[in-house]
Amino acid sequence: MERILIKDLGKHVGEVVSIKGWVSVRRDQGKMVFFDFRDRSGVVQGVVLPKSPAIETAKDVRVESAVAIEGKVNARPEKNVNAKVQNGAIELEVTGIRVLGRAEALPFDISVDGYNLDLTTELDHRALTLRHPRLQAIFKVQAVIIDSFREYMKSQDFFEFQAPAITPATAEGGAEVFQIDYFDKRAYLTQSPQLYKQIVMTAFERVFSVNKVFRAEPSATTRHITEIVSLDAEMGFIDSWRDVRDMSENTVRYILQEVGKKCAKELEFLGATLPTMLDSTPTLSLTEAQEKIFAATGRDVRGHKDLNPEDERELYEIIKKETGSDFVYVYGYPTRQKPFYVYPNPENPEFNEGMDLLCRGVEWLSGGRRINDYKQLLEHLRIWNMEPKKVEMFLEAFRYGVPPEGGFALGAERMTMQILGLKNIREATLFPRDMNRIDHRLSDVEAPDGQ
Amino acid sequence: MERILIKDLGKHVGEVVSIKGWVSVRRDQGKMVFFDFRDRSGVVQGVVLPKSPAIETAKDVRVESAVAIEGKVNARPEKNVNAKVQNGAIELEVTGIRVLGRAEALPFDISVDGYNLDLTTELDHRALTLRHPRLQAIFKVQAVIIDSFREYMKSQDFFEFQAPAITPATAEGGAEVFQIDYFDKRAYLTQSPQLYKQIVMTAFERVFSVNKVFRAEPSATTRHITEIVSLDAEMGFIDSWRDVRDMSENTVRYILQEVGKKCAKELEFLGATLPTMLDSTPTLSLTEAQEKIFAATGRDVRGHKDLNPEDERELYEIIKKETGSDFVYVYGYPTRQKPFYVYPNPENPEFNEGMDLLCRGVEWLSGGRRINDYKQLLEHLRIWNMEPKKVEMFLEAFRYGVPPEGGFALGAERMTMQILGLKNIREATLFPRDMNRIDHRLSDVEAPDGQ
Repeated sequence: MERILIKDLGKHVGEVVSIKGWVSVRRDQGKMVFFDFRDRSGVVQGVVLPKSPAIETAKDVRVESAVAIEGKVNARPEKNVNAKVQNGAIELEVTGIRVLGRAEALPFDISVDGYNLDLTTELDHRALTLRHPRLQAIFKVQAVIIDSFREYMKSQDFFEFQAPAITPATAEGGAEVFQIDYFDKRAYLTQSPQLYKQIVMTAFERVFSVNKVFRAEPSATTRHITEIVSLDAEMGFIDSWRDVRDMSENTVRYILQEVGKKCAKELEFLGATLPTMLDSTPTLSLTEAQEKIFAATGRDVRGHKDLNPEDERELYEIIKKETGSDFVYVYGYPTRQKPFYVYPNPENPEFNEGMDLLCRGVEWLSGGRRINDYKQLLEHLRIWNMEPKKVEMFLEAFRYGVPPEGGFALGAERMTMQILGLKNIREATLFPRDMNRIDHRLSDVEAPDGQ
Repeated sequence: MERILIKDLGKHVGEVVSIKGWVSVRRDQGKMVFFDFRDRSGVVQGVVLPKSPAIETAKDVRVESAVAIEGKVNARPEKNVNAKVQNGAIELEVTGIRVLGRAEALPFDISVDGYNLDLTTELDHRALTLRHPRLQAIFKVQAVIIDSFREYMKSQDFFEFQAPAITPATAEGGAEVFQIDYFDKRAYLTQSPQLYKQIVMTAFERVFSVNKVFRAEPSATTRHITEIVSLDAEMGFIDSWRDVRDMSENTVRYILQEVGKKCAKELEFLGATLPTMLDSTPTLSLTEAQEKIFAATGRDVRGHKDLNPEDERELYEIIKKETGSDFVYVYGYPTRQKPFYVYPNPENPEFNEGMDLLCRGVEWLSGGRRINDYKQLLEHLRIWNMEPKKVEMFLEAFRYGVPPEGGFALGAERMTMQILGLKNIREATLFPRDMNRIDHRLSDVEAPDGQ
């Protein structure tokens, strides 16, 4: 008999059908056994009656076993209909159970309601805990975030390229870069596709990439992982950094809209509310943001070189109260505090045309306009005390006619974490790597709390 | 004036418009100057007449400069219409040229017809040569291959996950794995997401991933690069390995169809013909394939443990002649020659249910059914002399009810190379890494031919 997906069972009331999936719940009520079965499409309740040929197997089969089920789709009596759950109007009267993959006894409860693990245990058992609907909901949302980024970029004529992971000695970073034994030489894992996306932009005009970046920060906070999914974009022929701001705003707006549409059930299950993005997100220079914080709180951070986490939280609260927006753009950072390629404001070169988008007080996105003039790049390399030799390929691209350009980058895990209100970025990472863990803990010593 | 994309100029005949792009060609004919301009959407011819206010700039501007152009869209006189090229019925009468990014003199000719570089020089100047339409066509085809893979997977209910690049000490590989300094420990770059995709499959049933894999083979052939884009899929609840075969065949068929549709111009420009895939691709066991080679050529490779490149070429020629198919599936390899997780044929356990898809004599795809029974996996680990500890997370997934399952993987660069008939995989890789090159050559010593 051909397999039917669980989500389609409602179309087969009165018929004998075959489904395949996992046993989520088994409740042995003596004479009868009740089940919840799940497959990739959903969940359905099943019952094995005392006279069913499947009753012996039903008494024996363990939770999380993979099974093939035969049974009749019955409409539930009116009083048992549950409109709130999938397939709440039907029940499968099971006549056959075939075990396709046996399960051992579970080390802990992974039922929807019974699941209650600390994060360390959850990660120690990632292979099993991934079956829980909470974790499935998180990674479904993440898949939609990443795919919506690509969809929007394609709709705007951006060309997708594959950014490299292995890099030669680079001008960027230092201590926070992972080194690789590369045959008899040394190579490094990329910290950012920044220079590559700028190179590819000079040929394809508008480019994007979904790629891995690597950070060797020796830090074990709730925000640090070593391998990150970066969503990167770069565009040429802009009139000003505001074109980049607008493109990034529309990208984030589209992602939120698609998550809202495609993950309504998941958001509800996780108790998450999408952040509010206005038609036009409030946009302040760093100086204006600092003035605002001073005016509202009396705390004087005017003239500081950046916003610290406390500033970011306060700015969020001020903007939220004033406008209702969960988002705020901050632009115009001190030029010397940022990388060499960020474009200085021609009217006030002490400040640049870099920008960050904060959501609920946390940075989601950063970007801005870049320098497109070869001589200005050389001059910046000199001031930043960097060897042109180390960015030779990048510099070559800029010798030959590069228009005004800019771009932005988003971290997929951080966005997932923030949208869903998760407390630790590891919850938003399928196989999180940090200084203490790659799949398993790297030592037998107990890792710090929250690892 | 608002920028118009070059592909839309035909809709603006008789109007004064603004375009932005690069100077592809400049032909100074004394009184007049002719140009080809290009942007991300296409190419148009421009002419600067003697009395144009732009004539001075036109005499001065270099090829590959980034420019903003103002001009009037004129219909060409009938005799000058060229129906074969984009915008062959119009010409832009240029009245203004603004240089947005100056180009230095080019180190070599990168015009459509004049381009003629050996691959080493091409790669040494990747940042510039990427502007050539030949290279743009190659990477457009590659982007469509990768995106079509994702599209088909999504249409078949596969869940996209992010496979990790950093792995702990693994059971796979040995000498051909890149080592990373991971804080005070050692970690490795993944050779394959195989075990991770199987883990994620046990939770999501059907999964796919577009991810980087890394191969440290100390080899400098035309087929070896160290960083590869791998297209991976895995599916549960199969009835036999033939379900995996069929899914992989439909995936490849969809990719070819989309490349045909979306890259017709690129294929023509590159002189490439898509390989022929029949409604049902010829499918032979290894033993049958060896018999066929013996029967057709008299060369006796019966009983050999695998097909070598010569066998693969001959098999291709035989099948092509017999059926017209450029593709052939070969399945049923000696169990002990393949990884521990490949499913042995229950009726003849000396041979497995692994498979390869060859196109024009080269392997494109490999996959097959995997072992889903925990005890059988443990038994194989013992026979393969591998430590269960090193695949602990993988094994945990298989303790708890895994249905019959299988999957497959494709290399994006190899597919691109084969479809386009390229001679070296580096031509099909945006930033190829090999033992002698990461962007630039790793030594000043001349690399072997073809590097």
